[in-house]
Amino acid sequence: MSDLQSLFQTRYGDTSALAPAAASAVIEHLLGHRSVRAYRPDPVSDDQLAAIIAAAQSAATSSNLHAWSVVAVRDPERKAALAECAGNQAHIRDAPLQLVWLADLSRLHRVAGQCERPDGALDYLEMFLVAAIDAALAAQNAAAAAESLGLSLVYIGGMRNRPEEVARLLGLPPRVFAVFGMCIGYEDSTRPAAVKPRPAQAVVLHHETYSVEQQAAPLAAYDDTMARFYEREGMNVRGTWSVHSAKRVAGPESLTGRDRLVEALANLGFELK
Amino acid sequence: MSDLQSLFQTRYGDTSALAPAAASAVIEHLLGHRSVRAYRPDPVSDDQLAAIIAAAQSAATSSNLHAWSVVAVRDPERKAALAECAGNQAHIRDAPLQLVWLADLSRLHRVAGQCERPDGALDYLEMFLVAAIDAALAAQNAAAAAESLGLSLVYIGGMRNRPEEVARLLGLPPRVFAVFGMCIGYEDSTRPAAVKPRPAQAVVLHHETYSVEQQAAPLAAYDDTMARFYEREGMNVRGTWSVHSAKRVAGPESLTGRDRLVEALANLGFELK
Repeated sequence: MSDLQSLFQTRYGDTSALAPAAASAVIEHLLGHRSVRAYRPDPVSDDQLAAIIAAAQSAATSSNLHAWSVVAVRDPERKAALAECAGNQAHIRDAPLQLVWLADLSRLHRVAGQCERPDGALDYLEMFLVAAIDAALAAQNAAAAAESLGLSLVYIGGMRNRPEEVARLLGLPPRVFAVFGMCIGYEDSTRPAAVKPRPAQAVVLHHETYSVEQQAAPLAAYDDTMARFYEREGMNVRGTWSVHSAKRVAGPESLTGRDRLVEALANLGFELK
Repeated sequence: MSDLQSLFQTRYGDTSALAPAAASAVIEHLLGHRSVRAYRPDPVSDDQLAAIIAAAQSAATSSNLHAWSVVAVRDPERKAALAECAGNQAHIRDAPLQLVWLADLSRLHRVAGQCERPDGALDYLEMFLVAAIDAALAAQNAAAAAESLGLSLVYIGGMRNRPEEVARLLGLPPRVFAVFGMCIGYEDSTRPAAVKPRPAQAVVLHHETYSVEQQAAPLAAYDDTMARFYEREGMNVRGTWSVHSAKRVAGPESLTGRDRLVEALANLGFELK
């Protein structure tokens, strides 16, 4: 079995899945992604960080506006404070580097100010979305780059649990919002992470128009795939992937504080008109 | 000069920039990204598309919720209609494949329904943001994968100009929003695209806390870098990058219809509480 075939079957948790004929070393690299939550203390060097950021900046950015920034946090106390904001996730303390990815409209506000021009569009949801997407595209390039250097990572959505406190810890000016964090470091190989299976392509890939029908059977199969995965990994997940996911979106109480995101963003200078 | 050194200097438009010591083939690949707007008619095969989507699905997804989908559009009439929605960009017609990346909360709505569970969290801005970020992370992996197969691409933010019409063209159910498009195909080598320079790392990379001060000098230098770039590429850009960017955020009239994004999202089933 080729490397690609093996990676493909692991990615879909399906030993009968056939890898496509099109392939590249980059695609094999991307297929191997794992979210890692156990790190050795070994640091990430400035050279590694510079290479990661160059990759991040190479991603597309809407209208070449560069509406994002990132804060590299290595200070143990600041990492511990961020961990507390983000639901007390131990790996935020343990990973030597925390990258906090920012939707940044403050730079454009300053640029417009220096040009003595108005910048009313910054108060619209569209520009917040542009900035969040810019940050996400940059971060995903950074993720691929970090893994190519032998590092591991995990995204931290919990960085949105208490946005004002994160902004205070990082000294963010108005119009800057921490979209998510990212732990980076070397995996603790005594606690290795597994590749988490994805649903079959028919669940996410549509041709010409959106199809609800094509998703039903592969989603049912995905519940079985994930049940096998939870068992094999010794994860104590109650119910199927479907039940687990439904619980996650049950109501405002399931959003770990993020039900007040609109209010938090207003406090941070985003009007979202 | 090494490949990496050359790629690094082109990426920053700075012949004195020194590449970091950390390197990998994946990072070199990412540094070479160019947004391409001129395509040959040659098709993208189903095998290539399957490899691209496998890479996209390998990106992280918040809480393993897979809150995204993508529609692959190859039909010339549908591409032409999408092009008209997105500001009449000719390359949407010319590229053989248009991938429309979707923030998709409809699947979770159906999953919760099948489990006979509530899904009130789907009405919050947080879940819309989760879905948009999921789509962006997947898309950026797809971009890297496509380029590794010898294909080229450009993101299409104009897909947000008329969201309800795009949703109608693609048959999107409620709670699904086209975040952006992506042209994919083979570059027309008679009209090659250049690597667009980025500002120095100090503009986007902060250590421990956010610094406004460190950005001023490199942003001024970036205006010079981009002036040289506009001239070399024969682009008719009036004013500096700063002026051009300030114009882009001047007010609602500069958002090409996207100033009504909140209203459009409400029409598409997103409450954004």
